[in-house]
Amino acid sequence: MTINVIDVDDPADHRLDDFRDLNSVDRRPDLPSGKGLVIAEGVLVVARMVASRFTPHAMLGTDRRLTELAPDLAGVPAPYYRASVEVMAEVVGFHLNRGVLAAARRPAELSLAEVCEGARTLAVLEGVNDHENLGSIFRNAAGLDVDAVVFGQGCADPLYRRAVRVSMGHVLLVPFARAQNWPSDLYRLRDNGFRLLAMTPQSGAKPLSTVMGELVDERVAILMGAEGPGLTEQSLRASDAKVRIQMARGTDSLNVATAAALAFYERTRS
Amino acid sequence: MTINVIDVDDPADHRLDDFRDLNSVDRRPDLPSGKGLVIAEGVLVVARMVASRFTPHAMLGTDRRLTELAPDLAGVPAPYYRASVEVMAEVVGFHLNRGVLAAARRPAELSLAEVCEGARTLAVLEGVNDHENLGSIFRNAAGLDVDAVVFGQGCADPLYRRAVRVSMGHVLLVPFARAQNWPSDLYRLRDNGFRLLAMTPQSGAKPLSTVMGELVDERVAILMGAEGPGLTEQSLRASDAKVRIQMARGTDSLNVATAAALAFYERTRS
Repeated sequence: MTINVIDVDDPADHRLDDFRDLNSVDRRPDLPSGKGLVIAEGVLVVARMVASRFTPHAMLGTDRRLTELAPDLAGVPAPYYRASVEVMAEVVGFHLNRGVLAAARRPAELSLAEVCEGARTLAVLEGVNDHENLGSIFRNAAGLDVDAVVFGQGCADPLYRRAVRVSMGHVLLVPFARAQNWPSDLYRLRDNGFRLLAMTPQSGAKPLSTVMGELVDERVAILMGAEGPGLTEQSLRASDAKVRIQMARGTDSLNVATAAALAFYERTRS
Repeated sequence: MTINVIDVDDPADHRLDDFRDLNSVDRRPDLPSGKGLVIAEGVLVVARMVASRFTPHAMLGTDRRLTELAPDLAGVPAPYYRASVEVMAEVVGFHLNRGVLAAARRPAELSLAEVCEGARTLAVLEGVNDHENLGSIFRNAAGLDVDAVVFGQGCADPLYRRAVRVSMGHVLLVPFARAQNWPSDLYRLRDNGFRLLAMTPQSGAKPLSTVMGELVDERVAILMGAEGPGLTEQSLRASDAKVRIQMARGTDSLNVATAAALAFYERTRS
């Protein structure tokens, strides 16, 4: 299969506009206030985008990265705009070490029902508004067998460029959906057979290992709030069990993505 | 007990020099090439510094942060230079949201023998040269009952400002030592009764839960390398067992601090 390679040496070429000024506040293509495009960076993440439901409509990269990506690009109709490192830097506004970018439009979002179908384990996030934490949670979800992520209120955009990058592209592969009604969608999850586990440092909560051990044959939704505020009262009330990670004396909390990893790990372990 | 509060309104005051231009490449006080000072930021981290072996010799902060810190500062002889938000911004070179800083000189480093004494669990790092990962590893070590951290070759400075911040100050509280002879100090650890577990994604490695379950009554040293390259051949050879985290299909690795958290968690769980 051939790859649609187009050589470009003019940084002002309009065909590269979707990759222009990636850091500029007012023109960032990855912000919904901009074009809302999904941008993948680097060979690994571009390859994951190609394999995902986020079909790239254009790529911009060096010849070296084209060689590395070639096996993944066979049969991909989107043009690969091949440019020098210098032309790329002028287009994106800075020197891009990773050497290759892909841009995709946002497909229709998946519904809660779609991502729940067949899922054994869900991560449900509330108020997680840090792109780096969001990205890490997706990377951990992919690595530790979480089937899908559900967004409650107050979460940041998982398709923001930084989140895509930190997730190593897994935000493109792990299905996610936004709850339309919060917190009542939590009750909908329960009606679908999910046991709702609220992660919280509260002392009355049960140890992670105990709870997960009892739910091996059940569907589980793991609820997590942002570092600091944690889950809202309404989400804690809606849950079937409060679950905590046993912490050493004198310490209070772990990073939310790390806490998520421990919960996911305990789930795979059980 | 009184607190040694000194009001300052001149940003050029030389008594504030240890907090000057925190981001400036050539003058950063937290770089060994600069003064090598240890800088704590924010109420929580400054309080942890005060409680640590890193005795602050000066603090710079707003009146609001002084009020919040007061209980921790009773009996601390170091001056608290009280300044406005504007004066602070001019001194440090940017607006510092956290509102308070403390500076400490580096005390003598602890020896390998000192940090091993009485330790049940060690984290041993090789080639971990990312300050954020280093900081996260210390935060995870503190929260998940690791007694000390040992640095093999190729690790970044754990006392760099960003590492201190990301660790939430735990880099000041969790004892650490640098191996003087690498990798032969690994054999010294074994002579001291530690079982050396090398974390690696290699398929021949044993599952984390199996290995930790067998070592409940043993001293354990958990060896970790940087993301990407992983541990060197010589460290893998020196280990008693290769240990892996079971990953979902299609995924390759976790962030090194996340992998560390899972190993530490499994150790506390056993």
